[in-house]
Amino acid sequence: MTAASRYTYLGPEGTFTEAALRTLPEAATRELVPMISVPAALDAVRAGDAAGALVPIENSVEGGVSATVDELASGEPLMIYREVLLPIAFALLVRPGTTLADIKTVTGHPVAQPQVRGWLAQHLPQAQWESAASNADGARLVQEGRYDAAFAGEFAAATYGLDPLVTEIHDADNATTRFVLTGRPARPAAPTGADKTSVVLWLREDHPGALLEVLQEFATCGVNLMRIESRPTGAGIGQYSFSLDCEGHISERRVGEALMGLRRLCRDIRFLGSYPRADRVAATVREGTTDPDFLRAADWLTRCLDGRGA
Amino acid sequence: MTAASRYTYLGPEGTFTEAALRTLPEAATRELVPMISVPAALDAVRAGDAAGALVPIENSVEGGVSATVDELASGEPLMIYREVLLPIAFALLVRPGTTLADIKTVTGHPVAQPQVRGWLAQHLPQAQWESAASNADGARLVQEGRYDAAFAGEFAAATYGLDPLVTEIHDADNATTRFVLTGRPARPAAPTGADKTSVVLWLREDHPGALLEVLQEFATCGVNLMRIESRPTGAGIGQYSFSLDCEGHISERRVGEALMGLRRLCRDIRFLGSYPRADRVAATVREGTTDPDFLRAADWLTRCLDGRGA
Amino acid sequence: MTAASRYTYLGPEGTFTEAALRTLPEAATRELVPMISVPAALDAVRAGDAAGALVPIENSVEGGVSATVDELASGEPLMIYREVLLPIAFALLVRPGTTLADIKTVTGHPVAQPQVRGWLAQHLPQAQWESAASNADGARLVQEGRYDAAFAGEFAAATYGLDPLVTEIHDADNATTRFVLTGRPARPAAPTGADKTSVVLWLREDHPGALLEVLQEFATCGVNLMRIESRPTGAGIGQYSFSLDCEGHISERRVGEALMGLRRLCRDIRFLGSYPRADRVAATVREGTTDPDFLRAADWLTRCLDGRGA
Amino acid sequence: MTAASRYTYLGPEGTFTEAALRTLPEAATRELVPMISVPAALDAVRAGDAAGALVPIENSVEGGVSATVDELASGEPLMIYREVLLPIAFALLVRPGTTLADIKTVTGHPVAQPQVRGWLAQHLPQAQWESAASNADGARLVQEGRYDAAFAGEFAAATYGLDPLVTEIHDADNATTRFVLTGRPARPAAPTGADKTSVVLWLREDHPGALLEVLQEFATCGVNLMRIESRPTGAGIGQYSFSLDCEGHISERRVGEALMGLRRLCRDIRFLGSYPRADRVAATVREGTTDPDFLRAADWLTRCLDGRGA
Repeated sequence: MTAASRYTYLGPEGTFTEAALRTLPEAATRELVPMISVPAALDAVRAGDAAGALVPIENSVEGGVSATVDELASGEPLMIYREVLLPIAFALLVRPGTTLADIKTVTGHPVAQPQVRGWLAQHLPQAQWESAASNADGARLVQEGRYDAAFAGEFAAATYGLDPLVTEIHDADNATTRFVLTGRPARPAAPTGADKTSVVLWLREDHPGALLEVLQEFATCGVNLMRIESRPTGAGIGQYSFSLDCEGHISERRVGEALMGLRRLCRDIRFLGSYPRADRVAATVREGTTDPDFLRAADWLTRCLDGRGA
Repeated sequence: MTAASRYTYLGPEGTFTEAALRTLPEAATRELVPMISVPAALDAVRAGDAAGALVPIENSVEGGVSATVDELASGEPLMIYREVLLPIAFALLVRPGTTLADIKTVTGHPVAQPQVRGWLAQHLPQAQWESAASNADGARLVQEGRYDAAFAGEFAAATYGLDPLVTEIHDADNATTRFVLTGRPARPAAPTGADKTSVVLWLREDHPGALLEVLQEFATCGVNLMRIESRPTGAGIGQYSFSLDCEGHISERRVGEALMGLRRLCRDIRFLGSYPRADRVAATVREGTTDPDFLRAADWLTRCLDGRGA
Repeated sequence: MTAASRYTYLGPEGTFTEAALRTLPEAATRELVPMISVPAALDAVRAGDAAGALVPIENSVEGGVSATVDELASGEPLMIYREVLLPIAFALLVRPGTTLADIKTVTGHPVAQPQVRGWLAQHLPQAQWESAASNADGARLVQEGRYDAAFAGEFAAATYGLDPLVTEIHDADNATTRFVLTGRPARPAAPTGADKTSVVLWLREDHPGALLEVLQEFATCGVNLMRIESRPTGAGIGQYSFSLDCEGHISERRVGEALMGLRRLCRDIRFLGSYPRADRVAATVREGTTDPDFLRAADWLTRCLDGRGA
Repeated sequence: MTAASRYTYLGPEGTFTEAALRTLPEAATRELVPMISVPAALDAVRAGDAAGALVPIENSVEGGVSATVDELASGEPLMIYREVLLPIAFALLVRPGTTLADIKTVTGHPVAQPQVRGWLAQHLPQAQWESAASNADGARLVQEGRYDAAFAGEFAAATYGLDPLVTEIHDADNATTRFVLTGRPARPAAPTGADKTSVVLWLREDHPGALLEVLQEFATCGVNLMRIESRPTGAGIGQYSFSLDCEGHISERRVGEALMGLRRLCRDIRFLGSYPRADRVAATVREGTTDPDFLRAADWLTRCLDGRGA
């Protein structure tokens, strides 16, 4: 297969990221290549070795989130074209024949541990936990006989020849991870009425009100903020960039207006894309901020400039 | 003379308004017509009987300010093309021969009284004050012998055959009145770099934060507010419109942007003009809000929409 | 009678201000003294010659509003203890026997003219208007035979031996004037649940966002602003103080908190009183800004400081 | 040793977290116990098995940051008493005798990989990378002979009998990790003039302006925000809590005032402590927000309530 039909993802095989990727219809016709890290998955796209990369960006039980946010903020620009939400539930994977009573040692990604802590305390209070480099790696180590059981996605069982002894394990009721499909910059897809726009900002000065002004810009344009995350810029502790998602599509006037305002306000800004919301919730648009409202205001300004209106 | 060469003003002859009007170079070639009230002066322009009207709009010692603000906010639209600042100092006008010791009664416009109260208490503590319909009217009443002295502009002395017994009377050190020259709507004069823009706003709802949002719109665009005045709308106590002056010219991007924002935000808006500041102070333009900043932001948005930039 | 039982008001007799004063129950037992100007009425209270002064403060058809706002902002402090709302309607007062057809000249306060302009144009298009120093003064001049008719309050007819030929004249449907009863500073009356608080502010610097910060302070504390008016400070055009009314009583926590914030934020502040609203509308109190909310927050802070809570 | 003299930390031995802990003078007299995860380290403190726990909270190359932020926001309350900043530089650890030319496989924590990617591409372009569960774990695997080299802190060499072949490896010039020492809730240490305060907030409603109001609360009180991070609440994607650091100490009035405002504004708030800044930078205090400013404002309010001042 060619690079154009290849998608990379945060591996190894059998991770939740792979499961998320397989929910995309086009995944069936693509070559899916696991990579050892988020940067590696994204770099393959940058280098032209793959058309897209699916990586976790929010609330992951496999890590990688900070790496994703930071990688999208630096290096060669990439854009987000799709998001996938995947409910996270663990299975306890064992070699065929193993029973709960046989389990003395368990493994899994350190980030998964808090999600299964409650279940472990109740059902396997004596079991020893040791960390693995990923949930799928844990499954591999069980296959190799190093541990008795591993927490991983149920879908990883087949890959490693294991059985899911217990399924649907998750301490939080609502553990969902958000993944994004990224690619090289291109024209955003047409708006669907239920879109999301992502940007990264670097504030001009380290002055108290800078972030406030950014949020004010969104509020003034009637654009709802969905996520805001501060990330160290690498220029020292206390120096941050902000990764933001807002409702709406860059081709909508209120979003475009807010983005232009941010462009003027900030030292730097990176547009990460406008793409359909996985939850398909339509944006709420405040009175005075619809596209026709913006057009009427522009018409009125023109009339004032021409002396034809007041 | 024709209507095109006629200017009306808040009369009668001999008022500070007439004095302000005469500071305009073109006044020398115009027919200057005193009117009994601000509405009358403005209506003459609306009716096509005059090309312009000079009326006080701020800090007047002859009243008329509220009338001006309200009249510009209602009826047929008018626009402001010029502003005049006039330092206010009173002269004590008397019939020739009168001395300070002769003065038992004084008159003047009620609004002038606070400006001369201190002087009166010190120099004429026994004198009886009675109000006149205008400062110039007071001068006329002294001419007719009804009072011994009138407070008015020194320039009114000649008109009424009186002598300025004392001049430069004013309790506040900095009593200056602001007048505006209004005309029918037309294209605003070109920006000078030291301009002012006036609007009237009607907020969409009587919600606590509405005015805050208006001020925020200016702040977001980096436009300095110079004056804000609430005026009852006539729709009941507690219902206000807001009369505002801000720095800059409507043809400047940051001002145009703020005005469009107000247009979307408010139930109604009336553009009252962009015109040179009488004090010739250049606007301070905040980083990120120059015309080139706005253009760069618009370019960037276009590139993002085209998939050519991030 | 003694000073303690004397109320002054903006005269002369027969004005709307007198009519407003007579709506107060205690007016029946007070000596009511007309004064020639708002400053004179207020100075009598300051000098101890009267216990209170009733003066117009908003939307007056007799002027005096700016004088009131300015006078309360300067000189010896006074406080507002009561407000009165009076619907304004004019009567056309004539000498007994005069008919509409007889009227060639009419008079009235210049500020009243816009309120009766429409009526005049329709019913007395030929009549000559001349301004009087007050509406009541106009009535006196009709009594003296100088004019044929005067616009004034219907209640002024008896005082000047005139007849109300036409009544209920007012161009705006909702012409209401607001008056305030002022006195020397004392403890504000107890809150009624429907109160109003008035202050005057002088901003610390002439910086663009100063007024915005003031409004933000109110918003942060959940206090609704009812009126805002900018007034020149006398320190030059462009230097303003702000006269504000907000909902609520100084003894309520959210109002006290906002006032303390303004005190810190502003160069100077003058508390003009907390008093019952004439319209008896109860304040809307936003979630999180009730007195119990403030107390709970203070308790929580104490617990945090003591290491007893988080 | 007893629990009172025991500190836990994110292990295993030889991590940057252990190195950070050893910079604290009291570490010399404490039993330092490595734990397999941030939750485990913190739970030991909650259970009374340790007096404190040192965990990474910002910009870590060993993960754990999200876990720390989330763990401090939930479960039994803990408080922060100290912060430590540690510059991050990697050493390439090898078994004695290994040269650069011998290295075919390298390992390390996946989060470390981006920090050493540039160095690897330049000096070991052919080496295979495999992830380890932690940097220290990677060192252990080199000791066991599974890999040729591991990226870890230079201080880990001795623990695992390895040699630091190359030191001071870090792609970013300014890679610093921030760690916090947490303990059970108690009275915060006295202010030093250069303090930091940490809280977690849950907004009351998912309304567009909620976060804006929070930032406004800080701005109104003149408190500078140092860090803001959104974290999913576990109640579903799109539901966030906010973890914030601001300048100043809870015992300072402007900070206490802001915290009380947040308490009223938010659905819930958790105070995580006021503690000395590791960088010893004194807070900048805006005019009008010093402790004396707050006291003067409170005095003024009292005088107004008593009728003794205006």
